[in-house]
Amino acid sequence: MEEGRSASGLVDRIRAGDPRGLGRALTLVERGGEAAAALGDAFLADQTETLVAGFTGPPGAGKSTLLAAIAGVLRAREERVAVLSVDPSSRFTNGALLGDRIRFAEHFLDDGVFVRSMATRGVYGGLAAAVVPAIAVLGAAAFPRVLVETVGVGQNEVDVVDVVDLVVLVLMPGGGDAVQALKAGVMEVPDVIVVNKADDPRAEATAVELRRTLRSGPTNRRPVLLTNSLTGEGVGELVGVIDDCFEEQRESGELRHRRRARRERETVRMALALASDAVWRAIAEDEEGRRLRQEVVDGVIGPADAGRRLLGVTCRLYSVTTGNGSSEESSG
Amino acid sequence: MEEGRSASGLVDRIRAGDPRGLGRALTLVERGGEAAAALGDAFLADQTETLVAGFTGPPGAGKSTLLAAIAGVLRAREERVAVLSVDPSSRFTNGALLGDRIRFAEHFLDDGVFVRSMATRGVYGGLAAAVVPAIAVLGAAAFPRVLVETVGVGQNEVDVVDVVDLVVLVLMPGGGDAVQALKAGVMEVPDVIVVNKADDPRAEATAVELRRTLRSGPTNRRPVLLTNSLTGEGVGELVGVIDDCFEEQRESGELRHRRRARRERETVRMALALASDAVWRAIAEDEEGRRLRQEVVDGVIGPADAGRRLLGVTCRLYSVTTGNGSSEESSG
Repeated sequence: MEEGRSASGLVDRIRAGDPRGLGRALTLVERGGEAAAALGDAFLADQTETLVAGFTGPPGAGKSTLLAAIAGVLRAREERVAVLSVDPSSRFTNGALLGDRIRFAEHFLDDGVFVRSMATRGVYGGLAAAVVPAIAVLGAAAFPRVLVETVGVGQNEVDVVDVVDLVVLVLMPGGGDAVQALKAGVMEVPDVIVVNKADDPRAEATAVELRRTLRSGPTNRRPVLLTNSLTGEGVGELVGVIDDCFEEQRESGELRHRRRARRERETVRMALALASDAVWRAIAEDEEGRRLRQEVVDGVIGPADAGRRLLGVTCRLYSVTTGNGSSEESSG
Repeated sequence: MEEGRSASGLVDRIRAGDPRGLGRALTLVERGGEAAAALGDAFLADQTETLVAGFTGPPGAGKSTLLAAIAGVLRAREERVAVLSVDPSSRFTNGALLGDRIRFAEHFLDDGVFVRSMATRGVYGGLAAAVVPAIAVLGAAAFPRVLVETVGVGQNEVDVVDVVDLVVLVLMPGGGDAVQALKAGVMEVPDVIVVNKADDPRAEATAVELRRTLRSGPTNRRPVLLTNSLTGEGVGELVGVIDDCFEEQRESGELRHRRRARRERETVRMALALASDAVWRAIAEDEEGRRLRQEVVDGVIGPADAGRRLLGVTCRLYSVTTGNGSSEESSG
């Protein structure tokens, strides 16, 4: 009961936009698991108009500085904005990384800017498990925009696409592997491409190369912009392009379509995150699961056979522990 | 019965190293699913001494050309070698890509070199689902070495680490994002690092920078080599370093340890791949699953709640269709 009361108190504080309540909610979300997901569900009724833009790109491209500059442009328009910096390579944050505190120093005492770093390594379900409920929380707090930045490399850049409305790829002049990946067609084309550090002599050539690459594909209308987050050059224009992009998505029905698909994917992801937890529990704690593990490690049975049996064990345990196997229990 | 006879015929042809049998087996494996996994299991008794090295790195670093050069060195020593080029960004190959045919032209009529490209996009379970059984097949065909190359960027570089004995990171001079990722500590340190295209004036400096980066971490003994796959410079040395690395792993027990851990992971992966299939089937075909989908897409229920119920539906279906929920069925 105590739990329930304090959780509902938290929900109220979040809706009121109380920064300490938000901080507490995001710490809960960062821990992941069912509690985090359930907190996201609590805001189902808050069908907000929050627009979520994801910023991906190689380390060193200057994403954080660019986000601080974008926050500056939005604050000049008196819009509130939330920035989530997601690091799937570390396990813990203390709410915000030192780097963010420095980069966002000018916004530090400004209630209209909420900045939060989240570590998602080891969070069951990966990046989405933490970011999806975090976005629901920030939406309930009525931030009209959430900017999600991914730190690091690899899968998180792919994953973030699944949880945002719009993707901005931030590159550095010269472009590195990302330009190669776009050219080779192995990278999903983002909605907007930014070449940051426009003062670099190679910046213009990189933008030209990117435009040429995009022209040869079916996505030739994707904008390529030059920005310099230190001088602010091009940042206002970028915000305008992002706004236009959202508007276009809304009018064409693309936004609604992406969000519906996202809810379906998120449901499947949630089911599989629970399944993953249940499978590991079965292999570690159940007698039959442990025997299967030993046999496969020793090479007595093959992993395909063992995996099939392990899922059988898992489903039996899951049905027993949750009573979720019967159809009346799971009817809504 | 016909199925069973032809499958066992295939197993015999694979053990005999028949190239056309191998090609057919790998086409089967490329399609993924339970049939592929079961084929891998069929070689459980063939506990071979095949060493598996994975080659990762950004596109453009020259991995394929380097592998062709390594194959040349091994053939000069009259060792047989298999090369798997895995592309998780495309759905189909025709057995080998044109590029491979050109790069491996000199080995084309040589039965001691087996080259195969595999597309794994859409294969359920990802890269591992195809590569693990493929390695089992090539091991059964008594190739003493399998070299696995990943094409493209992103998660596949992470995934390949899970399925090989030893990881070689191939970089180009200048190094690109990978050097940054190593420096930032967000990339797992590979067993061996190669700076390819050693004729580039920046190659030496890149190697020096990498050695300096590694010295500051706990993995300072990882070798950094310069190669030029066109002239062959450094390739013989690289093969020697890889040999030494395998030998060290074998003596320290690391090889046995990695392989045991791999079999456990592969079992869990297999269980989750089957779970994923079952969850998607439940949401698409089961009446209750379809209702859950509709409600979550419409925003009537939240994804956390819907996901939990969906796993309940899935487990009920899985137990019914496989009869796998009872403990006597799943005992070995």
